[in-house]
Amino acid sequence: MSSQYGEKIRLSIFGQSHSPAIGVSIDGLPAGLRLDMEELCAFLKRRSPGQSDISTARAEDDIPEVLSGLVNGKTCGAPLALIIRNTDVRSADYTEIRDIPRPSHADYAAHIKFGGFQDASGGGHFSGRLTAPLCAAGGICVQILRGLGISIGAHILQVGDVRDSSFDAVRVSVDDFEAIRRNALPVLRPEAGESMRLHILDAKEKGDSVGGVIECAAIGLPAGIGDPIFGGMENRIAGIVFGIPGVKGIEFGSGFAGAGQRGSENNDQFYMEGKEVRTRTNNSGGILGGITNGMPVIFRAAFKATPSIGIEQESIRLSRAENAVLQVKGRHDPCIVPRAVPCVEAAAAIAIYDAYLSR
Amino acid sequence: MSSQYGEKIRLSIFGQSHSPAIGVSIDGLPAGLRLDMEELCAFLKRRSPGQSDISTARAEDDIPEVLSGLVNGKTCGAPLALIIRNTDVRSADYTEIRDIPRPSHADYAAHIKFGGFQDASGGGHFSGRLTAPLCAAGGICVQILRGLGISIGAHILQVGDVRDSSFDAVRVSVDDFEAIRRNALPVLRPEAGESMRLHILDAKEKGDSVGGVIECAAIGLPAGIGDPIFGGMENRIAGIVFGIPGVKGIEFGSGFAGAGQRGSENNDQFYMEGKEVRTRTNNSGGILGGITNGMPVIFRAAFKATPSIGIEQESIRLSRAENAVLQVKGRHDPCIVPRAVPCVEAAAAIAIYDAYLSR
Amino acid sequence: MSSQYGEKIRLSIFGQSHSPAIGVSIDGLPAGLRLDMEELCAFLKRRSPGQSDISTARAEDDIPEVLSGLVNGKTCGAPLALIIRNTDVRSADYTEIRDIPRPSHADYAAHIKFGGFQDASGGGHFSGRLTAPLCAAGGICVQILRGLGISIGAHILQVGDVRDSSFDAVRVSVDDFEAIRRNALPVLRPEAGESMRLHILDAKEKGDSVGGVIECAAIGLPAGIGDPIFGGMENRIAGIVFGIPGVKGIEFGSGFAGAGQRGSENNDQFYMEGKEVRTRTNNSGGILGGITNGMPVIFRAAFKATPSIGIEQESIRLSRAENAVLQVKGRHDPCIVPRAVPCVEAAAAIAIYDAYLSR
Amino acid sequence: MSSQYGEKIRLSIFGQSHSPAIGVSIDGLPAGLRLDMEELCAFLKRRSPGQSDISTARAEDDIPEVLSGLVNGKTCGAPLALIIRNTDVRSADYTEIRDIPRPSHADYAAHIKFGGFQDASGGGHFSGRLTAPLCAAGGICVQILRGLGISIGAHILQVGDVRDSSFDAVRVSVDDFEAIRRNALPVLRPEAGESMRLHILDAKEKGDSVGGVIECAAIGLPAGIGDPIFGGMENRIAGIVFGIPGVKGIEFGSGFAGAGQRGSENNDQFYMEGKEVRTRTNNSGGILGGITNGMPVIFRAAFKATPSIGIEQESIRLSRAENAVLQVKGRHDPCIVPRAVPCVEAAAAIAIYDAYLSR
Repeated sequence: MSSQYGEKIRLSIFGQSHSPAIGVSIDGLPAGLRLDMEELCAFLKRRSPGQSDISTARAEDDIPEVLSGLVNGKTCGAPLALIIRNTDVRSADYTEIRDIPRPSHADYAAHIKFGGFQDASGGGHFSGRLTAPLCAAGGICVQILRGLGISIGAHILQVGDVRDSSFDAVRVSVDDFEAIRRNALPVLRPEAGESMRLHILDAKEKGDSVGGVIECAAIGLPAGIGDPIFGGMENRIAGIVFGIPGVKGIEFGSGFAGAGQRGSENNDQFYMEGKEVRTRTNNSGGILGGITNGMPVIFRAAFKATPSIGIEQESIRLSRAENAVLQVKGRHDPCIVPRAVPCVEAAAAIAIYDAYLSR
Repeated sequence: MSSQYGEKIRLSIFGQSHSPAIGVSIDGLPAGLRLDMEELCAFLKRRSPGQSDISTARAEDDIPEVLSGLVNGKTCGAPLALIIRNTDVRSADYTEIRDIPRPSHADYAAHIKFGGFQDASGGGHFSGRLTAPLCAAGGICVQILRGLGISIGAHILQVGDVRDSSFDAVRVSVDDFEAIRRNALPVLRPEAGESMRLHILDAKEKGDSVGGVIECAAIGLPAGIGDPIFGGMENRIAGIVFGIPGVKGIEFGSGFAGAGQRGSENNDQFYMEGKEVRTRTNNSGGILGGITNGMPVIFRAAFKATPSIGIEQESIRLSRAENAVLQVKGRHDPCIVPRAVPCVEAAAAIAIYDAYLSR
Repeated sequence: MSSQYGEKIRLSIFGQSHSPAIGVSIDGLPAGLRLDMEELCAFLKRRSPGQSDISTARAEDDIPEVLSGLVNGKTCGAPLALIIRNTDVRSADYTEIRDIPRPSHADYAAHIKFGGFQDASGGGHFSGRLTAPLCAAGGICVQILRGLGISIGAHILQVGDVRDSSFDAVRVSVDDFEAIRRNALPVLRPEAGESMRLHILDAKEKGDSVGGVIECAAIGLPAGIGDPIFGGMENRIAGIVFGIPGVKGIEFGSGFAGAGQRGSENNDQFYMEGKEVRTRTNNSGGILGGITNGMPVIFRAAFKATPSIGIEQESIRLSRAENAVLQVKGRHDPCIVPRAVPCVEAAAAIAIYDAYLSR
Repeated sequence: MSSQYGEKIRLSIFGQSHSPAIGVSIDGLPAGLRLDMEELCAFLKRRSPGQSDISTARAEDDIPEVLSGLVNGKTCGAPLALIIRNTDVRSADYTEIRDIPRPSHADYAAHIKFGGFQDASGGGHFSGRLTAPLCAAGGICVQILRGLGISIGAHILQVGDVRDSSFDAVRVSVDDFEAIRRNALPVLRPEAGESMRLHILDAKEKGDSVGGVIECAAIGLPAGIGDPIFGGMENRIAGIVFGIPGVKGIEFGSGFAGAGQRGSENNDQFYMEGKEVRTRTNNSGGILGGITNGMPVIFRAAFKATPSIGIEQESIRLSRAENAVLQVKGRHDPCIVPRAVPCVEAAAAIAIYDAYLSR
């Protein structure tokens, strides 16, 4: 299934970049949970375009309309469905790419898969716009998780070659998450954020784009969440995070760097802190055998540079099976990473809450 | 579900390290496919322990017994179930770890999840031994995929700080896969393999262990395999590869390195090679929007160092909630990476064949 | 999952009787299929209320708004989502039943399940109104199936003690389906329909209600659709038909009557009709071992009488755990069976198309 | 998926009538549950063939071998897999039916579905023998449910035209279940059982077979189990019961008979019995809106007569596409209904326990 995720709660995402609306239905939410719609809108606002000089000029309010599942502000046990209208749509920008696929974009693969019937406008179902309903679902899970003592935060770890500090994998706290959100860009060190902004602007001026890495932490999870083998927290989180357009890698704990280390370096030794079981280090990213161990869950997602760039590129003309030259028009983010931060948080929240309910 | 994977074919893996048998049932295989059991045994042999000075001394033949689903050597449409008996079992080695969990192993998480009722012997259901049925299922898919013109190969890209060459992401071929399998260790450059062997032996002598990175390629896939959003090839492959114990990261194409690049560098420009659509580079790892584009699918999996080491470590005594010291006994691989190479191929084969059937 | 159905296509239904909208997302529809919205509206019209003296006075147009998945009238491979606004809502009618559950309605079970947070208005998520999105999804499948040469038709077989003729299980044809739809009530014999109407009016006058049986046939299915054991056509069809409120039984072919027969009577003997394999009788309802055999698929669904009746009934007051007396107000169908006929066709169409795609 | 069932626990059944073994893997069982293997064998014994003059002469002990998931007699959280060896296999009996399908058996449908590669011996994967692993899984659930205060019992309600008494839908008790099992045939009235036996023997003598109806009750279920729409108890139970070969109908509560009644007759009025909510009648079969209401869950399953009969029948020769005459050889039950009683209990136990865990 392309648009469904979850075991105990079950998301079903729908919409295209330029369809009348995009939305999500969430089945399996417990009844009686109060949702704060204002907070949800604020969460969605964090991924909204058009807020600064480093994001796309497409401006949409992204106010979700709840169609079902809520009664007097509380979940009623029926699927919670919400939609977001697509208002600022300019399909004319996409005429050419129906025939000349953008390099490293989904255009060509979608053309083959759907036999030319795909919605090419704005990337259709493959558009980053589909992360809006993902964020809506995730923003709901964030609120529910907070009631369970579980908090999730993410920051930009890297843009181009500019790096922020990493989370302290053992002691990362809600204070860190709050500090991140007070900064102009979601980073731990504001000066790293300013360098990132300049790096992005430089790419933008050249009609180019940049990628980056987002680091995410979940704290307050009890030990024992997740399942062995294919039901592990890594499988679950990867299974949703790769649903965010542009993600090409994910690692947990020490990840790829840890692969170069010895067991004696990488192992996280246990100790008692009062009555609590803790580990001295957290190279496991809080997950052992697919199951949480009570330490912070830490992962990083690698985003490729936005494939839509203003620079002329080689491509092909599908209708004539010949080489062609493409210069992408339309409005695009020079770097999606800042706006992807709440998306990663949302994805993590959904995966974690689903695993929590499946425990 | 912890032990099930797949959409169109559906694996169900069972067993513990020291249970009477381990096995797998595969539902959804088309009828009429001939299986070469000798080839399957040879495939399983590649992950078998006890074959060299760098793997565990546990020696088992791992000959699968097919219980159902085959008639006269061909699939009959009914689930194909096979089991492998556990013969060389020494449960006595694991008495202590029931109470003192091994750092960075699943012991503690499993203890919490299963309330102390988990099978602790040999890691139980969390043991690397469970990759034997995964390999059996994957080895079957490898044979079927070959009939469809699709080949899969993997090699050790890194052990500790020793690196093999990477696949040529554009031109990787079956010749490369065959060359890898002729080497003592599965690598592209034999001299890298020899350095890896020495690196592993060095760790072994010190009672330590090492991790590594495996790179895998699938060639011959047509464009159009995979689904958008949560059904993408990345989600599908990650969803099974993280089922291999010890995997802590996965990246596709240029992955984390690509995240540091600009769009103009990382984009794969299209061109026609005769009647075939190809890309100049393959930083996308053959996947765009979750869907294959006809170029080789390339990914890398990061394995942490085997957590079982002979060196004394800090841990806790669960029964008394107090600190403790642990020295792991039992037979362990100083590096599981060499034996994990066919496991990664198997996982890729299953994910790809399942996506192929779901197209 | 409560609101999801399907293996290859995947429905996700949402909404409550009095929520802002009800709707459905359908994932997995092939791309490039043309939908006739006018025909879909006509299909939905068949289940619409307010059309005669034997249905509820609630009048809604039930015009679906397609939010996604269609481009220029053709499916584009993305999930097709559509919603229907709830317009004629009078929640005030339902104040009392929050505390005094209606006998044989879902009120009490929902109250326990959702801890009192369920949407009680109009039956909430349990309302027959939720069959509107089911019909919308089914109406789409009906159109697609017709392109594959598969037709589905249903009629009222029984209301109270009035019976229509049964389908000729061997020779039922599209002509029968068309004849049924020309009648005032969907029956094979118009005079049976008139007796049913009088029977229903009699119940209505007494503030009572009646149940009935719907018989459904699908013709043109090739042999070989469906899967063994839990994937059988019976399992698949029952799995969706019991999703229609009020259904309490289903039988295929000779069903319960056949259970009283001998093998020599009930067996359907094969013969060749030209190059076609056929059976002399069709007591199997076109399904053998869960798989179609090329004969018409025939099943019957039993609907209980609408539980909402105007007659005074015993019930309980939940807030005080004491006995109470209830007289149901609000607008209700004295018999839902006539309006349920397209719902049964819709359910059959979805199950059959899903099985067809999963073949 | 053909051989998998369940949402929270997940069965995967494998095997053919004449494959080396048949079996089942059950994922998702909680850890720490004690299983009584002797009781399980006794449960399986109830469906074993060769026990009387009215069942097939095929004699197998059907002792399950547990391969995984149990440690010291308790579940350990890993999938519980068990197999039963096929020992009394005589494939020669089935040579002819590879080409001449038995009327009303799965032979022809399987031939088309699997392109002639199906395992035809003994019905292959479609054989009633596959109910042995279903019974094993169900027998385990029966034990677990008893620990939760939930009991399940079934009896033969009808064979041919001989009828047993029905359960008292309001007051059915464990005493009834125990009384049933003390009788020669599982019935409420021993004299009905004796008539059934004679009826079956009469059919047997004539080389014929008979069908029947099994009635099943589950008592002790709390209210609130099951989900709306497609997750209802009816959908769940039907989804597994139709997996038993020969089942062609299912009804809950008053079912088809209730469809002929008025709401005022069929509605189950609520009243308080002390602090307990009960209903005066139980025409709903304990299920409202798909969810249990705390009253006994009651359903009936219709079994067609065994299609394998010794009487000469018309059929076709597949290899020549011509008419043929068939006289079935091999060992067959003249009536599978007595042996199917524990199968229906098993199916109900699995569906109910799965729904209970999913609550």
